[in-house]
Amino acid sequence: MFMRIDRLQAELPQPKKPNPNAAAALQELLGGKYGEMSTLGNYMFQSFNFRNREKLKPFYGLVSTIFSEELGHVELVSHGVSMLNNGPGNPKEDVDISKAPFEEMQDIRLAGSFFSYGGGAAPVNSNSMSWNVDMVTTTGNLIMDLLHNFHLECGARLHKLRVYETLKEPTGREVCGYLLVRGSVHAHAYALALKKLTGVAIEQMLPTPNIPLANIPECQKYLDEGSHRRLYRFGSPDYAEVAGVWSNDEVALPGDPPGALEVVDGPPDGGQMADLMGNYGAFAPDYAPEEMFEIAKKLYKKSR
Amino acid sequence: MFMRIDRLQAELPQPKKPNPNAAAALQELLGGKYGEMSTLGNYMFQSFNFRNREKLKPFYGLVSTIFSEELGHVELVSHGVSMLNNGPGNPKEDVDISKAPFEEMQDIRLAGSFFSYGGGAAPVNSNSMSWNVDMVTTTGNLIMDLLHNFHLECGARLHKLRVYETLKEPTGREVCGYLLVRGSVHAHAYALALKKLTGVAIEQMLPTPNIPLANIPECQKYLDEGSHRRLYRFGSPDYAEVAGVWSNDEVALPGDPPGALEVVDGPPDGGQMADLMGNYGAFAPDYAPEEMFEIAKKLYKKSR
Amino acid sequence: MFMRIDRLQAELPQPKKPNPNAAAALQELLGGKYGEMSTLGNYMFQSFNFRNREKLKPFYGLVSTIFSEELGHVELVSHGVSMLNNGPGNPKEDVDISKAPFEEMQDIRLAGSFFSYGGGAAPVNSNSMSWNVDMVTTTGNLIMDLLHNFHLECGARLHKLRVYETLKEPTGREVCGYLLVRGSVHAHAYALALKKLTGVAIEQMLPTPNIPLANIPECQKYLDEGSHRRLYRFGSPDYAEVAGVWSNDEVALPGDPPGALEVVDGPPDGGQMADLMGNYGAFAPDYAPEEMFEIAKKLYKKSR
Amino acid sequence: MFMRIDRLQAELPQPKKPNPNAAAALQELLGGKYGEMSTLGNYMFQSFNFRNREKLKPFYGLVSTIFSEELGHVELVSHGVSMLNNGPGNPKEDVDISKAPFEEMQDIRLAGSFFSYGGGAAPVNSNSMSWNVDMVTTTGNLIMDLLHNFHLECGARLHKLRVYETLKEPTGREVCGYLLVRGSVHAHAYALALKKLTGVAIEQMLPTPNIPLANIPECQKYLDEGSHRRLYRFGSPDYAEVAGVWSNDEVALPGDPPGALEVVDGPPDGGQMADLMGNYGAFAPDYAPEEMFEIAKKLYKKSR
Amino acid sequence: MFMRIDRLQAELPQPKKPNPNAAAALQELLGGKYGEMSTLGNYMFQSFNFRNREKLKPFYGLVSTIFSEELGHVELVSHGVSMLNNGPGNPKEDVDISKAPFEEMQDIRLAGSFFSYGGGAAPVNSNSMSWNVDMVTTTGNLIMDLLHNFHLECGARLHKLRVYETLKEPTGREVCGYLLVRGSVHAHAYALALKKLTGVAIEQMLPTPNIPLANIPECQKYLDEGSHRRLYRFGSPDYAEVAGVWSNDEVALPGDPPGALEVVDGPPDGGQMADLMGNYGAFAPDYAPEEMFEIAKKLYKKSR
Amino acid sequence: MFMRIDRLQAELPQPKKPNPNAAAALQELLGGKYGEMSTLGNYMFQSFNFRNREKLKPFYGLVSTIFSEELGHVELVSHGVSMLNNGPGNPKEDVDISKAPFEEMQDIRLAGSFFSYGGGAAPVNSNSMSWNVDMVTTTGNLIMDLLHNFHLECGARLHKLRVYETLKEPTGREVCGYLLVRGSVHAHAYALALKKLTGVAIEQMLPTPNIPLANIPECQKYLDEGSHRRLYRFGSPDYAEVAGVWSNDEVALPGDPPGALEVVDGPPDGGQMADLMGNYGAFAPDYAPEEMFEIAKKLYKKSR
Repeated sequence: MFMRIDRLQAELPQPKKPNPNAAAALQELLGGKYGEMSTLGNYMFQSFNFRNREKLKPFYGLVSTIFSEELGHVELVSHGVSMLNNGPGNPKEDVDISKAPFEEMQDIRLAGSFFSYGGGAAPVNSNSMSWNVDMVTTTGNLIMDLLHNFHLECGARLHKLRVYETLKEPTGREVCGYLLVRGSVHAHAYALALKKLTGVAIEQMLPTPNIPLANIPECQKYLDEGSHRRLYRFGSPDYAEVAGVWSNDEVALPGDPPGALEVVDGPPDGGQMADLMGNYGAFAPDYAPEEMFEIAKKLYKKSR
Repeated sequence: MFMRIDRLQAELPQPKKPNPNAAAALQELLGGKYGEMSTLGNYMFQSFNFRNREKLKPFYGLVSTIFSEELGHVELVSHGVSMLNNGPGNPKEDVDISKAPFEEMQDIRLAGSFFSYGGGAAPVNSNSMSWNVDMVTTTGNLIMDLLHNFHLECGARLHKLRVYETLKEPTGREVCGYLLVRGSVHAHAYALALKKLTGVAIEQMLPTPNIPLANIPECQKYLDEGSHRRLYRFGSPDYAEVAGVWSNDEVALPGDPPGALEVVDGPPDGGQMADLMGNYGAFAPDYAPEEMFEIAKKLYKKSR
Repeated sequence: MFMRIDRLQAELPQPKKPNPNAAAALQELLGGKYGEMSTLGNYMFQSFNFRNREKLKPFYGLVSTIFSEELGHVELVSHGVSMLNNGPGNPKEDVDISKAPFEEMQDIRLAGSFFSYGGGAAPVNSNSMSWNVDMVTTTGNLIMDLLHNFHLECGARLHKLRVYETLKEPTGREVCGYLLVRGSVHAHAYALALKKLTGVAIEQMLPTPNIPLANIPECQKYLDEGSHRRLYRFGSPDYAEVAGVWSNDEVALPGDPPGALEVVDGPPDGGQMADLMGNYGAFAPDYAPEEMFEIAKKLYKKSR
Repeated sequence: MFMRIDRLQAELPQPKKPNPNAAAALQELLGGKYGEMSTLGNYMFQSFNFRNREKLKPFYGLVSTIFSEELGHVELVSHGVSMLNNGPGNPKEDVDISKAPFEEMQDIRLAGSFFSYGGGAAPVNSNSMSWNVDMVTTTGNLIMDLLHNFHLECGARLHKLRVYETLKEPTGREVCGYLLVRGSVHAHAYALALKKLTGVAIEQMLPTPNIPLANIPECQKYLDEGSHRRLYRFGSPDYAEVAGVWSNDEVALPGDPPGALEVVDGPPDGGQMADLMGNYGAFAPDYAPEEMFEIAKKLYKKSR
Repeated sequence: MFMRIDRLQAELPQPKKPNPNAAAALQELLGGKYGEMSTLGNYMFQSFNFRNREKLKPFYGLVSTIFSEELGHVELVSHGVSMLNNGPGNPKEDVDISKAPFEEMQDIRLAGSFFSYGGGAAPVNSNSMSWNVDMVTTTGNLIMDLLHNFHLECGARLHKLRVYETLKEPTGREVCGYLLVRGSVHAHAYALALKKLTGVAIEQMLPTPNIPLANIPECQKYLDEGSHRRLYRFGSPDYAEVAGVWSNDEVALPGDPPGALEVVDGPPDGGQMADLMGNYGAFAPDYAPEEMFEIAKKLYKKSR
Repeated sequence: MFMRIDRLQAELPQPKKPNPNAAAALQELLGGKYGEMSTLGNYMFQSFNFRNREKLKPFYGLVSTIFSEELGHVELVSHGVSMLNNGPGNPKEDVDISKAPFEEMQDIRLAGSFFSYGGGAAPVNSNSMSWNVDMVTTTGNLIMDLLHNFHLECGARLHKLRVYETLKEPTGREVCGYLLVRGSVHAHAYALALKKLTGVAIEQMLPTPNIPLANIPECQKYLDEGSHRRLYRFGSPDYAEVAGVWSNDEVALPGDPPGALEVVDGPPDGGQMADLMGNYGAFAPDYAPEEMFEIAKKLYKKSR
């Protein structure tokens, strides 16, 4: 079972205006083969399908707590996409829809995201291809699954870096900055799990690609707070046994700020979700939503 | 952000022996168009893309808390699939793999689920077609999205009923029994949301299909405990405002045990996950896992 | 069996010049999840799979006659796409193909539609994703199928509105205007069918989204002629029994011009198909088609 | 625009009992690459995208009238699938759904067709893969499109033959017998069109595969009535000009009963649709449909 | 078994600067339904599945040697794509990735090709849809497969022509020029095979579309060297028996430079592969590859 | 460019009778995510997209020569599938197709493989899902691509083992035995490449899964001949520089017969292709192929 906390893992700056092609770039990090739907889907099904959970607790806990964190990553990128597609929103009433008010949407890269999702996020990549089962590996063989996950996180890092390199506005850059730090933790964690099981010091392959997080200004504050050394337990008091893998014996990767690895009991503080204003002219939440707001207000009062 | 509780929403009886075709039937409820990946995917992206959250809190809360519950449904069906495919597991060591020990896997309906997932669950339907974005509706228009969700839950109920009608063994039947009760709550909840917003008493269409839950023995204990009248808040203390929709003014559907609807603060008790034993001959978690278990044991101790 | 009448349901103005991105937008209404291929595919298979046709004649007739109309909608949108992609056509002979005469096609949103379809329509959405079976619901349960159809028509209306909001030129706007009126009839009709069967006044949810057709100038002439109150029987003398659902007891929706609903015996007059001139430089119908035209002329004469 | 006549092109014998694997075989002829959805989809979009219709009337008419006939083929195969999956139907009331009344559905080849379509037809092939745009060729180049169509009909004939070779019961065999005769006409017609345009006597490649229709008893009555020499105009009085291609100058293929080719004004007589009884235990049209039937009866009376 | 020769079938000029939309156009010729992955995939599986190889040697040899050539076509187009996406490469070290150095990649048609493939080629079409099994016909019926192949080559020619018509820069034009000549040979060869087997002079349908290669300057040098009359045996000394089909009795097509057809023992000379420089800022082969180069150098020396 | 040698890499015993479900199991090794189409597709595009080929010769050569070998693996598995589906073939003439001669094909797991491919192989997995671009990783980042390849080979080994465990008849077992040995070489080779580049002794993770090849009798003869220590250069005299990676410094994996690694100049001897007899009743190569054989014989003579 899962409990949601109504906060994002990181706070995202509101974009000043819509930037649908930047949103489309972020979609690669959401629904691409090496995106967050994939990290989520892989670890989720590996966790559900895990055999000998009791005998392999530290590894079960590792896959499980990272899976829970990935849910929050899907949430974070989705918010980024939604904010970038719509900008601050547009609660203008009485838009004259006969004047082609969204003419420019014809020329954005993924026009269908406007037509179908009203600018919201969906599980597709930056070319609008759907996420699907071919992006999931859940063999039940522990070494194979961990190795796959290690490779997946390295691939995810590469994709985040490339998406980052195309973005100028702060919302998307912040998404990348945060995910780069957390993805590095996950790559590191899977590497340590493999090392414990096989003796191979595979964490020495990191970072892949060969560029330190320090080159990315948006990563700095997360490095400063030690996020790169922390594995959060998104399932307190469960999963404490991940400390067997991500423990004090192990330290930060050479290129990152030094320090011991630590398991944190619970999630990070995270940040507030930006309030996504409506876009009435695009029928989100509807064309003339005043009555809707009135009803909601009454229901809200009644619920208190 | 999301916290995982390491329990299932319902306790599932361990099957006595593998039943891969029953597992394949359950896959329809996992990865089919009207399965749990769809309810999850739809409500998740609707929640992430929700506009005017503040002004529409009771509706945002409704979609969001049901989405969180759906995660647990995906978890539940996945466990059912995994248990049915492998039965109680088979920790036999030194399986002679040259003797075609899994010959019978050639003839199960979805042989690929053995080859690729070792009998684990994956986001595909009962014919092995992948779940994908075409099963997601997240338009941003509140009425449209709620109407879609209402239709989705009715379709999900029909599919659960048909899958149930093919199952003889208890694991899969329990999955269906539990999900039928909870799915009815969700259909009811979306109906009430639509009624509040439009004045249309659409909950009077329920139950669809036209058969009461009372006809299904496996639903009985959940009805007895009042599960059909409860909306759990998987996100305490958030989402309390769903009481505006699912509140004491409203009562259980006519065919179900009577009583007032209630919002429960937190998740249900749920049940313990069955321990999924390994299947060493199928390399899950591996062929000769003793050393692996030793390592895990040491790491576990170290983590205490 | 089906008979074709060589006219469109509405007459479309010829565009003055090609506008491939507008054509790409229209593709959403052709091959998208909520497009005309979907309304066609859903009602077609529901009609073919219909059980107890005799006992449920008014409902069988309803699904069947709307399905037949949808064929004409697919035809209409396809013509719109084809006209917009190619403009009035370009029968220039002796195009020097070595001079990159279609260089600009490299930058249109869906360049593949030029390469593969020569600018013609195809069953894909505005992002070029294929229409497929995941967009078809045909459960055989009558309430479920009708409810699905009602939701589908509401979704279709939303998509038509958003596409319309991106279009400046008249061909595509006319397609949207016509389809919006007819789609409203279908939503209304499915609502009435559900009301007859369940007692729920679900038609009061209309219009969804919450904007009257009167806001769309291109709808006006169709409203004036009462199209919004008419259900055509595309299968005379069959399907007369749809009058049981769409009958004089029922009237137009509140926001539309008032009047009684009526079943029309036969199709609307419709309009002439625009003659789609060739585009010889793009090999449609071929590079040097004169001889082809000669042959066709002789065969035509012979056929008289 | 299209008018539906509520009859099948051929009358199908009711199967005595359900035969889902035979239905699954027929699905190849419905949703496979060389199935009827493909012939429909190809000719439909070719017809809608046709350029220089006026100058190429006999060819436009040919593609268009065959497209209209294909709609009836999709209808015919769909009925075959639906009849085979459900047999004569099962209007038993009060099925005890807790007794696994559909246990055997777990082991049929395409179990999902029971769960999702209640045994109805859907646009998928015999392995449940969806029909999609990759099965559509509509280039706008007339020679290319006709050549594609000729190859498509030859492939369709091969698939029909192979499906036929697996079927023992009469419903599916009748479907194959009828379609083989009509498919031969279409192959022949496209061959003649190519011959008129290019001078190549490509009809001499027929029949492909190299076996005469006479070897198939189910074809005999259609050959006797001359169906193999007739092109129906599903769109009277339009498309008369196809006589320029399929005319009296041309005669039946050598292996078939001799005679002149002829264009028939209007559709064939066809046969009655079998009444598909409900399957109440499978919720089609619903579990307890009596009230539904009552309502329908009243509405029907009212419509007279 | 297959041996690779490290040369391209034709030498491609290096583009002066990146042109991603031109690369995206070329993708149609790589992963589209009528692209080189399709010709490869069709002939490959037809060759592997060929029955009665011994008795049908000339036809087996024909399909097999053309399949081997197609591998080189996939190679050639892939190089074209890769060169166009990246231009001459950019081995700049110390790119400041925080300055959005690839901002323009956000707006290219297929941005995902930058994120995922670093500008490399992949088996997708010009709209990024994946190549897949629906593009493969391998029925085992010889006439059917050959007829399919003939139609496939005609379709491929049309697509090459249209792609060519959008290209201004020399790299892509050279790819098209070369492939047009070789594709014409394949269409011709399949036509002759069909003629030998059925007596139908189907090669008289060529060229389709109706435009001679002479209209394309980039074809000229290949015509001059007689490439259009040559079938290479990519599998010496095997496949000599293709001379039974492509023999001296047969001559070049009327519109092409005259001469006897000839079977060449071995591959063409081909051209050198352009050296694809790295793009370090895009992490290809990596951000700071100097050490990598050093290691490779040492290993290379050791290997001598 | 590529030259084909008309031999298989290993000789396969002819099956005594058809075994379509065994063939379907082998399809996982052909078109599955971890099958030979994937190893082929990944290394092929990585090789074509390789940047700084000159500076990274040993690594370019490694990917390239393994890619060439994979072509032969696709060939080998395809032959296995084709042989198993059809058994020794059935050249019976005058099969009475009206007697349902292939009735049993209705019940095989992937009936579509009979209808569409006549029992031949196709790029689909064991559940008939198509191979596609989501199974290709070609990032251009050398470490990432090699790491992916290492994980891919481990996954491939697991899948081969599981397929092997379901097979009783010798044809499929031989395919598995051979591929297991060669796949181990590839995993080992990619591990060494990574070790040279990163210093991480990742080859110590092998074998994954944790079972030695010695447990598989079918591997024995290949181990005896030292195949596990050999990297063949499928591209002589090119790619000699792979000796920098797979050189005499390195030795066989601990569990395998000991010895130095060696690069072999050219392909292995391989084995003869079994002659696949026709299946005339299934129209492969056709129903009455005698004339076809006659023609081929004459053409063959003429070619000498």
